[in-house]
Amino acid sequence: MATTKPTGDALWNPQAQMPTARAKRLVLTGGEGAWLTSSTGRRLLDATASLWHANIGHGRARLADVAYHQMRKLETYHTFGRFANEPALHLADRLAEIGPVPDAKVMLTSGGSDSVDLACKLARRHWQLEGRPEKTMILSRVGAYHGLHAYGTSVAGLQYNRDGYGTSSLVPETARVATNDIAAVRRSVAEIGPENIAAIIAEPVIGTGGVIGPAEGYLEGLQELCRSHDILFIADEVITGFGRTGKMFASHRWDIQPDMVTMAKGITSGYAPLGGVLVSPRISERFFEGADAPIFRHGLTYSGHATACAVALANLDVIDEEGLVEQAGRLETVLAKAVEPLRDHELVEEVRSGAGFMAGVHLHEGINGDAIAEACTDAGVLVRVIHDNTLQICPPFVTTEDEVELIADTITQALDAYQH
Amino acid sequence: MATTKPTGDALWNPQAQMPTARAKRLVLTGGEGAWLTSSTGRRLLDATASLWHANIGHGRARLADVAYHQMRKLETYHTFGRFANEPALHLADRLAEIGPVPDAKVMLTSGGSDSVDLACKLARRHWQLEGRPEKTMILSRVGAYHGLHAYGTSVAGLQYNRDGYGTSSLVPETARVATNDIAAVRRSVAEIGPENIAAIIAEPVIGTGGVIGPAEGYLEGLQELCRSHDILFIADEVITGFGRTGKMFASHRWDIQPDMVTMAKGITSGYAPLGGVLVSPRISERFFEGADAPIFRHGLTYSGHATACAVALANLDVIDEEGLVEQAGRLETVLAKAVEPLRDHELVEEVRSGAGFMAGVHLHEGINGDAIAEACTDAGVLVRVIHDNTLQICPPFVTTEDEVELIADTITQALDAYQH
Ligand SMILES: Cc1ncc(COP(=O)(O)O)c(C=O)c1O
Ligand SMILES: Cc1ncc(COP(=O)(O)O)c(C=O)c1O
Repeated sequence: MATTKPTGDALWNPQAQMPTARAKRLVLTGGEGAWLTSSTGRRLLDATASLWHANIGHGRARLADVAYHQMRKLETYHTFGRFANEPALHLADRLAEIGPVPDAKVMLTSGGSDSVDLACKLARRHWQLEGRPEKTMILSRVGAYHGLHAYGTSVAGLQYNRDGYGTSSLVPETARVATNDIAAVRRSVAEIGPENIAAIIAEPVIGTGGVIGPAEGYLEGLQELCRSHDILFIADEVITGFGRTGKMFASHRWDIQPDMVTMAKGITSGYAPLGGVLVSPRISERFFEGADAPIFRHGLTYSGHATACAVALANLDVIDEEGLVEQAGRLETVLAKAVEPLRDHELVEEVRSGAGFMAGVHLHEGINGDAIAEACTDAGVLVRVIHDNTLQICPPFVTTEDEVELIADTITQALDAYQH
Repeated sequence: MATTKPTGDALWNPQAQMPTARAKRLVLTGGEGAWLTSSTGRRLLDATASLWHANIGHGRARLADVAYHQMRKLETYHTFGRFANEPALHLADRLAEIGPVPDAKVMLTSGGSDSVDLACKLARRHWQLEGRPEKTMILSRVGAYHGLHAYGTSVAGLQYNRDGYGTSSLVPETARVATNDIAAVRRSVAEIGPENIAAIIAEPVIGTGGVIGPAEGYLEGLQELCRSHDILFIADEVITGFGRTGKMFASHRWDIQPDMVTMAKGITSGYAPLGGVLVSPRISERFFEGADAPIFRHGLTYSGHATACAVALANLDVIDEEGLVEQAGRLETVLAKAVEPLRDHELVEEVRSGAGFMAGVHLHEGINGDAIAEACTDAGVLVRVIHDNTLQICPPFVTTEDEVELIADTITQALDAYQH
């Protein structure tokens, strides 16, 4: 059955205007390193690392091997209650070791949205157990993307992801705060009342919202605000985790110590659906001590999926052995330099770079960003349009310097061609 | 790193009283068919199919092969917008073909909770687009389990999964209806007002809530109620899908035609985290027609994960080629007969069987169900306690008749020993 050509008539793609998506369908069939092959045999440079996740590059034999052997041994067994499997135990230990949360406990999930919903629930649970029942509000930044389960949708800072459900937010106890203006955040917190606030969730570098690095002092300011008002600080490192900013976590780079860290994407580089949450002792301790310790009534069938965890461990080995975190740090500079000339391009509103090995090329309003992305793709470089008419650049860590140049050149040429 | 023995100190297990879970940790290291091996070398019969998902049994070389080859070729590429990969296209076609929803469109996810949050969001989106903005309520059954993301938590029919967040429900627009009393459901709908109700979600056979089959006429009654009041009918087939009730879907067995069907578990038998939602034309059509068709602003990084989809296709091939759906149907009878004598056991409140190849052995209040489950495990048969002091039995479809007998005998012996 899998050998005949699929019509794909039944597939409803995510975030898609389906008539357009079907008319222009682009089917990827192969990948090696930073390069992809399409069903028509074209080679394409993956300038976005798929959805910010293919950090170690595509088609790695080593990860396929690990998945194979784990599946042969035990594809998975659940980890509810007393049950566990070795890859899940190993991975939890290792994440606690490399993460930015001292003495962290680790809950495992299957993706970023999962991790966000878990962290938001746990934040509220925490304050209920602390005897502060009024602390239920979760604050997030304008422009934020925290996945699309019901909690992620509710804390979305991209309004179109929240719209269309008949109420202002699925979970009502949420509010948006200023993206990079800490004084404005302080005013919002005062207005809402810190006594009502369970947590603030923030991407250290806003991804889908346009690749927006933190303003000087913003993250530290958020943390200080949280500490001084008994508000939990959740860093959403789904994109920034595992090297994207030249440190293992962005929390290391900007020297913050969040109470929770949400993870996914780079944790497996996309080889298997996996995510997780690092939880600080401040929150976890009560759940781990004593015969009457409370139960956090949460869990997913695939929390700690054995094969996914084995794949994650192999991915972390590759990152370590090949020095890919440092490599991403070096490539950040290369990319920033490569996109620098685009700042002066007539069609470009702003170029955002320098906060990790990623960049956003924000086009003027009215420029057809999708047409530019399509022109780049036709020229052999896969980029895509994210929020606010911005081209996403976020290549795998195995991209060469020349390939980084190629990305910038291809975008420049597409813009030039559009112009004339 | 993965070769040293993990301490597992950092792992926070799902739904666990952590001090107990750590004291009694049971690590599974291998699996073949219906049997598992623990880290201490014990062989254990998997009487629960892990968490109701290991339908084709553990350690299948064929699925490991497929995962290996797909990972080598292209571990995955996202399917947002115009993008697609062949396994995702194939799987969507195949699910539409074998599912109970004529001309279904298929959205892919990484698990059951994902599918539930998606379906609830889409139900609300549907009525907003229909110009019925007041239709926002989602109704679910007492005893229901629909996962634990924010929407799943909000529609939970097991109160302890909803408790402890400071409000009566994370998403407020939800209500519980009677599990198996259609007249009572009718009264609830009248009270709430059908003009306020977006959807009713129901497991055809309640799983985690205790293995409760549908009362005669209940599901048909729900469907009729929905049809006559412009309410969407969502069948949560995360457990029942892919053969558990002796038909490919429980909707086939009870002859219902839901507007959406949520799936996970048996779709891959647990070999990879994957789920999906079948959506009827009534809902999907407007999203697929015309240059100005609306976008459903939803999606997960791993929606349509290429390796997970390839694994799902191989799993469906195995189910077909080995006739496992029919096999599950035969084993339903064997299991029902095997647990029949337990009805008369002093410690047993009720035995629920006959609604698929699964059963619930409901123990009297006050009996220590966990101790019984532990005694069974010590005797070599893995069972676990679910809602309301009920032992879950839900073996892989490759379990033999003798092994089914062994499960019933082991439980009987554990109960006998407890008694004396
Ligand atoms: C910062 C952030 N959080 C959460 C998510 C959601 O992750 P997933 O799509 O794996 O559910 C994403 C995905 O892009 C993300 O970028
Ligand atoms: C009926 C039903 N729906 C949804 C879910 C949630 O699935 P998952 O744990 O994969 O998120 C489950 C899991 O047990 C289930 O049984």
